[in-house]
Amino acid sequence: MKEKKSDIQPWETVDTEYLIQRPWLTARRDTLRMPDGKIVPEYYVLEYPTWVNIIAVTADERFVLVRQYRHALGIVEYELCAGTMDEADASPLEAAKRELLEETGYAGGEWTEFATLSANPTSMNNLNYTFIAKGVEKVSAQHLDETEEITVHLFTKDELLDLLRRDEMKQSLMVAPLWRYIAENHLL
Amino acid sequence: MKEKKSDIQPWETVDTEYLIQRPWLTARRDTLRMPDGKIVPEYYVLEYPTWVNIIAVTADERFVLVRQYRHALGIVEYELCAGTMDEADASPLEAAKRELLEETGYAGGEWTEFATLSANPTSMNNLNYTFIAKGVEKVSAQHLDETEEITVHLFTKDELLDLLRRDEMKQSLMVAPLWRYIAENHLL
Repeated sequence: MKEKKSDIQPWETVDTEYLIQRPWLTARRDTLRMPDGKIVPEYYVLEYPTWVNIIAVTADERFVLVRQYRHALGIVEYELCAGTMDEADASPLEAAKRELLEETGYAGGEWTEFATLSANPTSMNNLNYTFIAKGVEKVSAQHLDETEEITVHLFTKDELLDLLRRDEMKQSLMVAPLWRYIAENHLL
Repeated sequence: MKEKKSDIQPWETVDTEYLIQRPWLTARRDTLRMPDGKIVPEYYVLEYPTWVNIIAVTADERFVLVRQYRHALGIVEYELCAGTMDEADASPLEAAKRELLEETGYAGGEWTEFATLSANPTSMNNLNYTFIAKGVEKVSAQHLDETEEITVHLFTKDELLDLLRRDEMKQSLMVAPLWRYIAENHLL
């Protein structure tokens, strides 16, 4: 399966120029040198903070999903609760607990780290951490940011499977850990 | 599960300005109006062409993976064969067959469309189509672009599961359909 002898090597960055540095978009253009010496003059990297999302399940086996408008694709989508790690968050786990409480009002339960994935390692420099939270409970109202418009929905296992089979949830950073959860827990 | 009465509504685009339009990065800044009238002055959208990837399996049940350097994350990664739909491709399926032949030299077999996902519907406007190709065979050498450096690897089911359990494959557009394939075919 593996060819260790002459494995692929990283490419060398010979120049970097930032195109834009704003809170919601930081993009740079790197000039790279490939191992054989060829120069790649325009390689674009998008810089983002660490992301988190949560497979939150209630004691009676309901999955806590959120629904919101996603403008780039122009769709209203059911998703896992998700967000960005702030500087004040001590860890991805703390960020995930904060986001779940703010976006849904759910908290508590047993938390485990489940998956670490990338939306696109070719162009994006960040990772997304997925947590499983088992036995969460509604403890407060939502606390949304000014530009967040989010509703909360409880899905049974069969409703979740139906959503995933129809590709109605499109965000692969959420779909990937959910199918893994389904496979490993033999929910099919 | 669903609240149809007052469902989330799309936001209205009131202005659009392109920041960069290059073959490998097209970014625009939209000004949006939320349903309650609030203005979102800086919403960034990244425009990409349609993407494809392929779960290619040989007659003796080996998964055809590729290995390459992914600069944004700085990792060398095992991945599904994947690529971008060209204007000359009649359909995502034709793009997928072309990419598999070019990157790996494998072709043939029975092809089915499997999943349609997004790396991030918040900021990216394109979709990725995953195909299953069962019974592919090596029919030629690789035909790589100038800046492609790709090796081809055959994985057994257990080797693939091991890779996925360790999150060594990070690209969620590939991990999501692979876990779905594993769940639906009861490979665990």
